[in-house]
Amino acid sequence: MTKDEERVLAANEAFYAAFAANDVAAMETLWARQAPVACLHPGWSLLTGREDVLRSWRGILLGGGAPPGIRCAQPVAHVVESVAWVICAEVIPGALLAATNLFVLEAGSWRMAHHHASPLPQQQAAPPPTLPN
Amino acid sequence: MTKDEERVLAANEAFYAAFAANDVAAMETLWARQAPVACLHPGWSLLTGREDVLRSWRGILLGGGAPPGIRCAQPVAHVVESVAWVICAEVIPGALLAATNLFVLEAGSWRMAHHHASPLPQQQAAPPPTLPN
Repeated sequence: MTKDEERVLAANEAFYAAFAANDVAAMETLWARQAPVACLHPGWSLLTGREDVLRSWRGILLGGGAPPGIRCAQPVAHVVESVAWVICAEVIPGALLAATNLFVLEAGSWRMAHHHASPLPQQQAAPPPTLPN
Repeated sequence: MTKDEERVLAANEAFYAAFAANDVAAMETLWARQAPVACLHPGWSLLTGREDVLRSWRGILLGGGAPPGIRCAQPVAHVVESVAWVICAEVIPGALLAATNLFVLEAGSWRMAHHHASPLPQQQAAPPPTLPN
């Protein structure tokens, strides 16, 4: 894995950490300032522009909060010059989603420019861990 | 709109033209050769690698075919160096989807590296045209 891929995966991880912690300030920090941003929450209409996208996140994080224990699984990052995209699963109680997260390099930081999440088929959910007898 | 954005939108349009026409050869041409490719069909598991992604498209286009009349609506392209992403709606009978389509510049052509499509909320569907009395 390249250094850039590592940094992009760290930015992706920071996104899910902010999400799971209902951390509005961190969420606002990690979205791009210069690049046009957009967001497709599962089952929502498209949101475009930093203002509308961040308003949606404030609504989610402050009103009801993130799905408990949301975490990212199996992220894979691709970096081409100053754009990167991560494809990963999102694990929440009772469901598994897929996400496409796009990042741009701004002022030396990989910042999120687009998030698209949608449900994966139910049979994709990881089986419960098998306990030893 | 920049020249690059126009070219990316044309590549995006070619994708939907190939889809609507069940044109396997065109679909194979427009996916990237060098860049790692991935695809999230609505309700499917993640597919990665040109071979698996194109096998899925052959299955869709040759077995049952595309949803009749599928077309792209309201595409918006963003280009940063040799990466571009298009966010658009996909209009099919009775449903509206959102797509994130990612392109990379390869050998002078914008080629698709990632496609992620998922349903939009039903109320987003355009109302049926009102017929004059």
